[in-house]
Amino acid sequence: MPEASSKADYLVGVDLGGTKILAGLFSNSLECIGTAKLSTKSQRGVPAVIDRIERCIRDAIDEADLSLKQVSGVGIGAPGAVDFDSGTVIFAPNMEGWKDVPLKKDLEKQLGIPVFVENDANIAVLGVHVAELKSKPKSVVGIFVGTGIGGGVIINGELYSGFNHTAGEIGHMVIDVNGPKCGCGNRGCFEAVASRTAIFQRIKAGVKDGEKTLLTEMLGDGLEDMRSGDLRKAIRRGDKFVSKIIEQVAEYVGIGVSNLVNILGPEVVVLGGGVVEALPDEMMGIITKTAKDHAMPGTMKGVEIVASKLGDSAGITGAAVLAKKNVK
Amino acid sequence: MPEASSKADYLVGVDLGGTKILAGLFSNSLECIGTAKLSTKSQRGVPAVIDRIERCIRDAIDEADLSLKQVSGVGIGAPGAVDFDSGTVIFAPNMEGWKDVPLKKDLEKQLGIPVFVENDANIAVLGVHVAELKSKPKSVVGIFVGTGIGGGVIINGELYSGFNHTAGEIGHMVIDVNGPKCGCGNRGCFEAVASRTAIFQRIKAGVKDGEKTLLTEMLGDGLEDMRSGDLRKAIRRGDKFVSKIIEQVAEYVGIGVSNLVNILGPEVVVLGGGVVEALPDEMMGIITKTAKDHAMPGTMKGVEIVASKLGDSAGITGAAVLAKKNVK
Repeated sequence: MPEASSKADYLVGVDLGGTKILAGLFSNSLECIGTAKLSTKSQRGVPAVIDRIERCIRDAIDEADLSLKQVSGVGIGAPGAVDFDSGTVIFAPNMEGWKDVPLKKDLEKQLGIPVFVENDANIAVLGVHVAELKSKPKSVVGIFVGTGIGGGVIINGELYSGFNHTAGEIGHMVIDVNGPKCGCGNRGCFEAVASRTAIFQRIKAGVKDGEKTLLTEMLGDGLEDMRSGDLRKAIRRGDKFVSKIIEQVAEYVGIGVSNLVNILGPEVVVLGGGVVEALPDEMMGIITKTAKDHAMPGTMKGVEIVASKLGDSAGITGAAVLAKKNVK
Repeated sequence: MPEASSKADYLVGVDLGGTKILAGLFSNSLECIGTAKLSTKSQRGVPAVIDRIERCIRDAIDEADLSLKQVSGVGIGAPGAVDFDSGTVIFAPNMEGWKDVPLKKDLEKQLGIPVFVENDANIAVLGVHVAELKSKPKSVVGIFVGTGIGGGVIINGELYSGFNHTAGEIGHMVIDVNGPKCGCGNRGCFEAVASRTAIFQRIKAGVKDGEKTLLTEMLGDGLEDMRSGDLRKAIRRGDKFVSKIIEQVAEYVGIGVSNLVNILGPEVVVLGGGVVEALPDEMMGIITKTAKDHAMPGTMKGVEIVASKLGDSAGITGAAVLAKKNVK
């Protein structure tokens, strides 16, 4: 791995999301020194979002009392399919107009330093692998359950992104071929049955059918602005309807884990994302049990299934790792 | 890769199946010089089968007018979960009593030369990669549709078997969570909806429900001894019922391909196994179209989906490659 020069020894990691942009300023030993956060406002169009990414990067550097000259490179995790070599975001379904956006090229022009772009879930598993698992396991599968379901794969100790740099698109693994329609157009994708979006849809459908839940007391009948944390509050106050749905979703996640263990045989499976972060006690036991029940004999021996504790910082940390690995 | 000594320059590859044992004698440049075949007769018990494997190996060597002294090692593909390091067959569902069988240890004692054991589908994809694809693609997924569905994964140019040497168990990837029961106890595994076993079950159920098919004319109402080749004959004689089932199964296989491309991003997907070998024209078009329709944008760019032409010899060739790679 090339070492950055002593003049520019810092790295910036950016987690670009559909609703917010997070940036972190990291030392070369991956210690986070300053962070910044901006809303994405993707409705303002692609150039405006790229300007906001730039501003967020500059804010994080300023927060750490440093200057851009001291930064050797920027890594970005983007929410969609990315062509790593050109740094182009091929398609980001939750960002308006993000199709074939030359993010690396544009930002390098605006900042004057090297920029590297990868898929956000790949980046998050890279962050978890390096910062949380201390790069120990040689093979890891990361599963991030949030608005959608993202994933990433570490093989032989390195982020594995495959022939088209698209490996790890586990959210669109079909697990229920006759199941509910997914945003991608297929039926029964992993994220169509087990993401926060799927959970909220099932809750709303249940309420429409007359199911009783504390969520309507908490949020009103329209269930506006429901968040993962609301599910936790409802369950901890004894909401049987929400409990049941989360149990079923945890079973789906467990089946997803078992599929990935059968296919990839990883040493560690890491779960993260807003839903798992909000409901670790409610979900992890069921996920682990279901995965072990479903996996083939022999495949689960010694395999660890763990919840990440990095939370939001997985993305910016992994993005800084990406920059560090690629800065020449 | 270590070169065998000049004295013992030959390799034996064995494909151990539930019904037959194939052995091939290969030169160090992987040219097949002689083969032998025996029925497995697993009902006679484990030691008897190991004796038959030994006999089949000796027959193949004799067929090539060589002696055991000229063989530097034996590779074996076994139909189940294998612990590569110890050479133990952990579990082979289609072989009576095959649980924790120390195949490597026993055969090395009987033959006096090194023996290496891997899962049969892993071995087959290794054979296809080396002998058919000339080791060119860096990443390959192999899918073998036969009695069950086996798979294997090449990553960074090498067979990838993961932490527990169990990677590539794609037959037990759940794709229809509420679907038919699988031999493994789960519902809707890939092989429960798309293997030859699944095809035959659907045909038999259809006939029971009064569906008309040429197969009953060909094989009698009990549909005894149905083989993949019978499906081809029926379809080519215009059997709409069988055509329809094969179309649906090809769609399932296409969804399986798309799942694996989304997860692994391979450069080449190779299909093989008795069902695909018997019905390439009927299945490959539908498999490819369904996979492309289902995969995420960007993932399929430049990815080749091909039918293997190696047939039965993929297993013995891959087993010889395994021996060659591991003989010291």
